Amino acid sequence: MALVVQKYGGASVANIEKIENVARRVIKAKEAGNEVVVVLSAMAGETDRLIQLACSAAAEPNGREYDALVSTGEQVTVTLLAIILNRMGYKAMSYLAFQAKVITDQAHKKARILMVETKAIKNELNKGTIVIVAGFQGVDREGNITTLGRGGSDTSAVALAAALNADVCEIFTDVDGVYTTDPNICNKARRLNNISYDEMLEMARAGAKVLQPRCVELAKKYEVPIYVKSSFADEGGTLVTKEDEDMEREVVSGVTYDRDQAKITVVHVPDRPGVAARLFTPLSEHNIVIDMIIQNVSLEGYTDLTFTVSKKDANEASRLIREVAKDIGAARVEVDENVAKVSVIGVGMISHSGVAAKMFGALANEGINIMMISTSEIKISCVVQAKYTELAVMVLHDAFGLEQKP
Amino acid sequence: MALVVQKYGGASVANIEKIENVARRVIKAKEAGNEVVVVLSAMAGETDRLIQLACSAAAEPNGREYDALVSTGEQVTVTLLAIILNRMGYKAMSYLAFQAKVITDQAHKKARILMVETKAIKNELNKGTIVIVAGFQGVDREGNITTLGRGGSDTSAVALAAALNADVCEIFTDVDGVYTTDPNICNKARRLNNISYDEMLEMARAGAKVLQPRCVELAKKYEVPIYVKSSFADEGGTLVTKEDEDMEREVVSGVTYDRDQAKITVVHVPDRPGVAARLFTPLSEHNIVIDMIIQNVSLEGYTDLTFTVSKKDANEASRLIREVAKDIGAARVEVDENVAKVSVIGVGMISHSGVAAKMFGALANEGINIMMISTSEIKISCVVQAKYTELAVMVLHDAFGLEQKP
Repeated sequence: MALVVQKYGGASVANIEKIENVARRVIKAKEAGNEVVVVLSAMAGETDRLIQLACSAAAEPNGREYDALVSTGEQVTVTLLAIILNRMGYKAMSYLAFQAKVITDQAHKKARILMVETKAIKNELNKGTIVIVAGFQGVDREGNITTLGRGGSDTSAVALAAALNADVCEIFTDVDGVYTTDPNICNKARRLNNISYDEMLEMARAGAKVLQPRCVELAKKYEVPIYVKSSFADEGGTLVTKEDEDMEREVVSGVTYDRDQAKITVVHVPDRPGVAARLFTPLSEHNIVIDMIIQNVSLEGYTDLTFTVSKKDANEASRLIREVAKDIGAARVEVDENVAKVSVIGVGMISHSGVAAKMFGALANEGINIMMISTSEIKISCVVQAKYTELAVMVLHDAFGLEQKP
Repeated sequence: MALVVQKYGGASVANIEKIENVARRVIKAKEAGNEVVVVLSAMAGETDRLIQLACSAAAEPNGREYDALVSTGEQVTVTLLAIILNRMGYKAMSYLAFQAKVITDQAHKKARILMVETKAIKNELNKGTIVIVAGFQGVDREGNITTLGRGGSDTSAVALAAALNADVCEIFTDVDGVYTTDPNICNKARRLNNISYDEMLEMARAGAKVLQPRCVELAKKYEVPIYVKSSFADEGGTLVTKEDEDMEREVVSGVTYDRDQAKITVVHVPDRPGVAARLFTPLSEHNIVIDMIIQNVSLEGYTDLTFTVSKKDANEASRLIREVAKDIGAARVEVDENVAKVSVIGVGMISHSGVAAKMFGALANEGINIMMISTSEIKISCVVQAKYTELAVMVLHDAFGLEQKP
């Protein structure tokens, strides 16, 4: 008997009819002889409604209370699914975080799971009960409700799968798997049958929306196989697992893009030790996450320094950087929000040369200027003008022959 | 320093503006030097919305899941009030039932409070925190969420006041106190400054909507003074306390009515031992609550038996009774839903004679036929035709001179 954790997102539980569909899928897994744990998000739009309610009560709502408020969305869907499964003749029980003992730290709105006490859940599974756990929420050791941040339900599902030593964590979403690139931009996009944790992680970080990086990190750490599936179709699916010898080692597995980029350049910075630290310390103190950083070679004791941040942080980051720039004697600060990041990702890069050259050449052939480059072992990212985003994705998808199965 | 428990109903927390009003009242009590515990209901209409959601998922929703679903309404209001009080500069914390440890039995949808573990709340009160507790909800000893049934938030408030040994439990509602009768029916209705638990209990049982009988029972048991106040006005209020020598001992304190009555008569019942038990056992097995019962004196070995139930139970009750009536050889069963109950209530009745005669005379003068009579130590109730309800209330209010302060 296998133990399966299934996670359904907001679009899959948007109303009673859709929750009934979820119930039928859950029953199918149960009838196939599995022990089944289900993790649910709130109904599509509900978490946003609750956040608006909190923000209409205070511009900066108290974190503890905010979390207890927004976590009600998942409480509604898990109890509705349990009611429906019971009606359909299956024993099912909902578990809120305090009941499932999903213990987190105290960082409200972005808590991290510390442990899941699985005794009660295992007990119910042994009795044949379908266990339904509220995603996105946790409790700290004092019993205060916490939430895990956006996409937290995926993390809840993987954490439960890890704690229960589940055979697979199935993530049901509105697409039927992980694609070589976004099918909305490139009609040659092809669904991947499988992908490694590292590639999925780089794709998530580089802008692919299908899974959150945190959830993939956790799956990698505990070697939980993730199966990404459509909740509206029976076909398809992509298995995210650790890389093994049988896995197709494609040089490049996917092309991603991220429009949420703003580029900030500090021009004519005196090239002295400690200058970079002085520039970036205020940003980290304000919790601004920096994505890419490049520094030109120094010329006559001066250099230019460019970095990218999320568009929502662009104003605050440029304000902070302008203050420091003045102090250290830099010439000026330039901000450009009309940029995007395109990336090619693949574990095969490690053993293949020429990937970077091929990428740059393909972009150059279309007259797309590369403004910044950054690389990891299995990823190359380029910042380009925003208007070239779709073109760059299509060109790279073609250049690496991703429409064909290797 | 006094400890005050304040309870606000659904109309008082219907939206952010109204919750801000509640916050200002809470702050006033706090600034007056009190320790303050607040108990809230869900926003007006929200519990009904959640019940509809549950009933659209299953005709008879699983009780455990139903309770966890409908209890989200209070979770929203308590966190919003805490957010607003924090914004206004006051330390405030919301407590759900599992956090406040409001322990109940396992009777879902109508659980009874067994105990409240007040340690955590007292701890916060000592730090000057305003403690906000979700009404209507509890947890059983295994941590399953329960709800207390309609009007449960009043019961939550009184139970907390009893457990915390509070000086007073203030119930804020949309009326400014307890009246001699319903002001919507009788414009001579007068607000009472105080009333005894027993009178309030009889009034609540006899149809007055302002407080639920369960909440008054609990207040009486633990001698918690209840102060019924308007959440929209500063004036007025009625204090519900144990009767003491200073209390104005009015012969009659109030007149109530209850339209939710159906009268069922079993005609020509053979007058044998055990017949009444055979008639009423099936009703109790189906959880049908019987209000009044009268049995005529036996004539030639036969009698008529009449009782009243809530209108919603009339069909089922008459079906059950018809089955037994056939078995025991009764002639027929008659059902009349066009009836109402009017009652006069007052602790003074114990020491005054002539109250019943005055009541029957006043009704007779207006040609109102009395179909059933039942009495308790401090109450006399008559069942009359429904169309006479308002007239009977006004006539009795006049007859006992209730418009004048004694």
